[in-house]
Amino acid sequence: MPLTLYGSPIATCTQRVIMLCKELDVPYELVALDLLKGEHKAPGHLAVQPFGKVPVLRDDEEDLCLFESRCIMRYVAAKYWHKMDLIGVDIKPGAFIDNWLEAEGHNYDPPVASIVREKVFGPSLFGRTPDEAVVSDGLRRLETVLDAYETVLSDGRTYIAGDQFSVADISHVPYTWLLVHAAGVTEPLRSRPNVWAWWQRISTRQSWLDTLAECSPAQAAPK
Amino acid sequence: MPLTLYGSPIATCTQRVIMLCKELDVPYELVALDLLKGEHKAPGHLAVQPFGKVPVLRDDEEDLCLFESRCIMRYVAAKYWHKMDLIGVDIKPGAFIDNWLEAEGHNYDPPVASIVREKVFGPSLFGRTPDEAVVSDGLRRLETVLDAYETVLSDGRTYIAGDQFSVADISHVPYTWLLVHAAGVTEPLRSRPNVWAWWQRISTRQSWLDTLAECSPAQAAPK
Repeated sequence: MPLTLYGSPIATCTQRVIMLCKELDVPYELVALDLLKGEHKAPGHLAVQPFGKVPVLRDDEEDLCLFESRCIMRYVAAKYWHKMDLIGVDIKPGAFIDNWLEAEGHNYDPPVASIVREKVFGPSLFGRTPDEAVVSDGLRRLETVLDAYETVLSDGRTYIAGDQFSVADISHVPYTWLLVHAAGVTEPLRSRPNVWAWWQRISTRQSWLDTLAECSPAQAAPK
Repeated sequence: MPLTLYGSPIATCTQRVIMLCKELDVPYELVALDLLKGEHKAPGHLAVQPFGKVPVLRDDEEDLCLFESRCIMRYVAAKYWHKMDLIGVDIKPGAFIDNWLEAEGHNYDPPVASIVREKVFGPSLFGRTPDEAVVSDGLRRLETVLDAYETVLSDGRTYIAGDQFSVADISHVPYTWLLVHAAGVTEPLRSRPNVWAWWQRISTRQSWLDTLAECSPAQAAPK
């Protein structure tokens, strides 16, 4: 098996790559690191991920190691595009997909991550009480971002970068799933009909249901 | 002229794209938006950049508009790679360059941006006093990131992604310039010999000196 993914099944950035591999039907081996034991800060991992984060992808066919989940997604999607084009092989769709993968990383992810950290990871992993001021600020920023998404999606497109399902859609799924199903933050999405319809489309992909079943069996049956 | 860049000459994300165009010797027209007057929040700009940020690139040859500076860089570098390969056309160097462009965006940029916002933009544009707690936290996070950079660069590579100068190097330049020359934060770089040598190499490129001369004439002669 050429692809080895060093990550954590409970980490959204690892799940993002797993969903992509399942969508492409590309086999991979997941080597699970225990983040609570600090295995991502061990010297062996730091040698390939100098910032001590997950995931890392090793591709034995090309003799390379990569980190940063969105970089890994672009790499895997480009290498296996002949199985299914999730990256936009032609210049114009490719540019739009990259545009929205970046928009996810720099606009959508920060407020969602901040809410999920406070409301889900903090309490469940570290026994912390959520800081309501941080949650409120995250929700305020998320509402602004979702207003932009609603406007963009109201032009009739099926997916965030156009009519082609892509890595840009996949990249949104894991954190939004936690936002909706673990943090209980649904209304900001449901109250925007185009956002909500898009979320239903991308979160019911078989690749995501299979990712949940592999990574988080307790969540695979949504509350 | 096919490329039109809507941005602000004082914004580092606009400068990043300008440096790339100058490196490639690709002509562009810069349409300067006055951020202090809120021109990036005007309906015409929001129609192409729904989050109300800069820069936006319009390419009349391909009839497309893109936003997110690192996406724009990948697009321009890929379109004009035949002039100079700054993106890594082959799969392995291309993956490493993308890896470090992402690392810059998600590891290096956040602490640097936070320090420069407090020490430079806040006081000079809004008359604010720097919040020293935010500065200290940014410096602490920057030191950790630079430790990783020092280790990576100590393997003898010339540039951050290997021996090829690339978009990954360019993406670091504008904010680091402000960090060093406007915020006066030099020691974290200077005290790490491989980081400092790399910074000297990338910040003395003619493309950056020309970017400074166009965008920020007062800074073109470093203090």
